[in-house]
Parts: sequence; structure tokens; C-alpha cells
Amino acid sequence: MKKYIYGVDLGGTTIKIGFFPIDGELIEKFEIKTNTENGGINILGDIVKAINSHMLANKLSKDDVKGLGIGVPGPVSNGIVQSCVNLGWGSVEVKSDLERLINLPVSVSNDANVAGFGELWKGGGTGYNNLVFITLGTGVGGAVVCDNKIVDGHVGCGGEIGHAPSLDNEFKCNCGKIGCLETVASATGIVRIANKFLKTSSNKSILRGKENISSKDVFDAAKKNDDIALKTIDYFGKNLGFVCATLAVTTNPEAIVFGGGVSKAGDILIDVVKKHFNEYAFSVLRETTKFKLATLGNDAGIYGAAYLANQM
Amino acid sequence: MKKYIYGVDLGGTTIKIGFFPIDGELIEKFEIKTNTENGGINILGDIVKAINSHMLANKLSKDDVKGLGIGVPGPVSNGIVQSCVNLGWGSVEVKSDLERLINLPVSVSNDANVAGFGELWKGGGTGYNNLVFITLGTGVGGAVVCDNKIVDGHVGCGGEIGHAPSLDNEFKCNCGKIGCLETVASATGIVRIANKFLKTSSNKSILRGKENISSKDVFDAAKKNDDIALKTIDYFGKNLGFVCATLAVTTNPEAIVFGGGVSKAGDILIDVVKKHFNEYAFSVLRETTKFKLATLGNDAGIYGAAYLANQM
Repeated sequence: MKKYIYGVDLGGTTIKIGFFPIDGELIEKFEIKTNTENGGINILGDIVKAINSHMLANKLSKDDVKGLGIGVPGPVSNGIVQSCVNLGWGSVEVKSDLERLINLPVSVSNDANVAGFGELWKGGGTGYNNLVFITLGTGVGGAVVCDNKIVDGHVGCGGEIGHAPSLDNEFKCNCGKIGCLETVASATGIVRIANKFLKTSSNKSILRGKENISSKDVFDAAKKNDDIALKTIDYFGKNLGFVCATLAVTTNPEAIVFGGGVSKAGDILIDVVKKHFNEYAFSVLRETTKFKLATLGNDAGIYGAAYLANQM
Repeated sequence: MKKYIYGVDLGGTTIKIGFFPIDGELIEKFEIKTNTENGGINILGDIVKAINSHMLANKLSKDDVKGLGIGVPGPVSNGIVQSCVNLGWGSVEVKSDLERLINLPVSVSNDANVAGFGELWKGGGTGYNNLVFITLGTGVGGAVVCDNKIVDGHVGCGGEIGHAPSLDNEFKCNCGKIGCLETVASATGIVRIANKFLKTSSNKSILRGKENISSKDVFDAAKKNDDIALKTIDYFGKNLGFVCATLAVTTNPEAIVFGGGVSKAGDILIDVVKKHFNEYAFSVLRETTKFKLATLGNDAGIYGAAYLANQM
């Protein structure tokens, strides 16, 4: 009888694998290094080896496993990823290649989408069928969930919220465009804004003279009422709140959930986004849209991948 | 055998009713006046009378009819509309009230959503499963369609794109907020912008001195290379293209379809929106997002309502 599933979170540095009972809580997690050499040609094989070893050690046969879900760091459409620069991949048929190698059903989606599903299933978004998940990390990713389904969209760019235009049109994004939300709302973006304000102001600041400021430093300073930090956080919140106001009238999510490293800042993040959201959002949505923090941390990906597998 | 359906487009002035074979082309349409007296208490009864008369005249029994779909001018959730100011309605249980009165299955949604469904089924969006429909009329409405389903959202505000924040923060919207897309991209908004540019510039213009400028006048003047009109259309396109760039990374529609009176301007509208969309949109979406004009005109509502009924 099919009793178990595997959830795989494929990142540029490590591959996290979670072992779950069907519809249940994480039993065990383990990870392997991502081998990006030779265009990442060994990655799928390494995943299969790791899962086969785990099955062997736990005396499981293929009959015990329903399948595996996997989140990959690139846009996915019909089980195929077009390009994952972090893995060295061009176009890879992840679903059919993995199914052939492991002889189990596979479900694949974009990693930010999958993390969103994890938070929806067992994290900050539990209980909401309509949700937008925004990952505030080195970059800004996202997932749009409508009626419990991730919206991949026409070419897999559903939830690519980091590339929504912000109110800022100063900084160039890695994608080549000026002013993407990611340039001002990612961890990197927050530091960029803080440095800009430090340069253009002569106000005292805890951040002044500090080497390698992090977004955590900025939030910590803001919590101590540091003027430059508060101004930075407000600018971050204005741009993020502005984009959230458009998301809110597009799919009208019940909750917008923030994950990624920046979300560890806590309630101060929610407060500043909500302040500006209230300025830009359609009236009825000011009262009815909830803002939440992700709760699964680095496990969101394996939870979401397990959920994907559950849905098969 | 169930062979027919009715599609109802409930507007503030008239109620349009279409008679369709299941899954087929419009056979006949007729309309009645919308009686908004006494808080619109007779509206649902009037619809039922009109359909019953049509069935009698065509010798149809309830056994011949699968059901009816209806689009109403307000946000709908679970068959209930919270408020339709144009009808004099507060909260009305449209689905259950109509089902009780007519003794047939009823499916109900917001009128802009329903018009989007009409265009998706038989109009400018035919063949696309993922679509955003934007109605540019007196106001700006919209519908978001993912995997062939309209996204109503948590409180029925899915597709309320007219209230997305634009780049402009000058004009007050009917909703009470400053800078909604509707304030610069509706027919009214276009006239507002033209009047502003006429006031703040001394350039010659065909529009100058004209009484009661319409958005059609502005587009017609732009087609004749009138400077103020071109500037107006460009401002309209900039704001609409900007919001479309966020829609594109949210649900990643295959096509964005423009309907409503303003869309009669034709290709000039598509060209100016696309020009600015290309400035703000994520690179892969510049190539893959199609912009289309609606083709069903005033019949989009009854087609979409029939489609709703088909889906039951």
C-alpha cells in the first residue's frame, strides 16, 4: 500500500529531501550537496540515489511510496524547466527524466511556488484557500494560490512577484529591467536603500561606518528607532505595500504571507507593509486582507513538495 | 432532455437575456428595463417573468432547460452579492432567490468577470485558458481567468483591476482612494487627463474649445497626430501598461483582452499599452503576453452568463 511520499527542495547549494507519511507530518529530513558541475548533469541522478538509499535503509519498496514532489529554482511549465542558472541547467524535462530514473510518479513546480504550498498546507497560510506567498530573500519570489492550486501561468511566471514594477525606477535588476520590486524589497535591496540613505543624509545612524550591513542590521536598527533605518524600512514597506495592493485586486487572496530571510524581522515588517497597503488598497480589502509571516522557515520547500506529491 | 440555457446580463439600465443551445451559439436575445425602484425589489421577479414568457412562447418546459447564468454589477461571493449601488441593492442572495423563483439551477458572478468569460469562450480570448480581461468603460473593471475558471477571490474582488494603484496620485476615485487605475484609464479618466493637458499646455489641439470631449474624440484626435491627444493616450497607456506588468507576473496570463467602450479605439490602444508594458514587464513576458481586443461588444455579458450556466 502507498503510505509514504518524498518532498524534494532543489537549491543551488543543497538538495533537501523530506520523508512524509501521506497527508501527514514530516518524519525525517536529510540533505545532499548540489553538484552543479558539467551543467548540473548529475543532479537528478544524485536525488534518485539518495532516495533509493533511504528506501533501502528503511526497508521500503516502490509499492510503499506514492511518489515525489520537487521544487526547482526556475519557471516550470508542464514538468519542464526552461532554465535554472543556479544549477547550470538549460531546458530540463524534470518530471519525465525523474520518473524514468526512479520509476515513481513525480510532480514538479517552481521552488517559490512550492514553498508557498508548504506554508499553505502546514505553515503561515494554513486554512486559507486563496493566498499569495512572497519570499523576501536574496531575491524576491512568490507563489499565487487560487482555490488551493498554484497558478503557474502561461509560461510558468505566475507568482514571479519580484519582477513586478515598484514605485522606484532607480536600480537595475538582475533580469535587466529597472525598478523591479526585488531591487528594493529583497535583503539585498534593503541594504541598497539603506546605503543610499546613508550617502544622501548626514543624520546620525547606528548603521553608519558599519561594514557589510545586512537587512537584519537594518531591521534591528529600526527597532531601536534609528532614523536612517526607519526611513529605509518605510521605503521598503511603501514599495511592497504598493505591489500588494495590485495583487489584492487581481486574485483577492485571503492572506498575503511573507517568507524568506527578511521575514524573520517579524511584526515590524507586517506593520510597515500594512501601513502602506492601507494607503493604496481598495477599501474593502484593507479590512479583509490578512498579512502573515511564514512559519516553516527552510522546511517550507520540502513541505510544499510533499503537498505536491499528495495532490497527484 | 436539457437542451437550452439562458444567459442574463443584469445592468443598471437594461437586463439583457440570451437564449442558447447548450455549448452553442446565441439563438436569440431580448431585453427588459431594469426597475430600480424600491431598492430594486422587482428585478429578480422581472427576470423570471421574462424567461417564463420566452419559454411559453417557444413551447419549452423546465425539462428542456439546463439552467441560467447571470452577471450582476457588484462583487459576488457564494452566490450572494454584497451591494450593487446601480440597482439599489444591498446584500441579495441572487443564486438562492432566483433558484426558488424560477425552479432551475442558477450560477451567478460579477458582471465584469462574466463579460471576461464571454470573451474567453467566444470572443477575443478564445483559445486561451489563462486570461485577464479588462473592461475600459465609464469605469475600469476586469476578470482574471486561471485554468478556465474565473478567480472571484476571498471577498469577490478578484479582477477589480480598476482599483489597482496607478502611477498617478492626483485624482480621487469613486471608491474614495486617490490614484486608482480607473481615474486615468477609464473613458472618464481619459477625458480628465486630456482636460488637464489642455489646461497646462498652450499647444494647438483639435480638442481645444470642444464641448463635452469624449474618450473617442481623444483617440480620433490622436489618430490625426494631435499633440495633446497623443500625450493623453500615452499617459493612459503608461498607467495601464504599468498595471498590466504586475498582472503579468501575478497570474501570467497568455492574453490580456481589452473590452468596453474605450476598446473600440482599436489597434492604437494595443500599441500604446504594449509600448509601456515592454518598459515595465519581466523580459520573458514581453515576448509571450498577447494583447487583444474584445470582439463581442455588448453581447459579452450574455455569452459569459451562458458559459457560466454551461459549467454547472
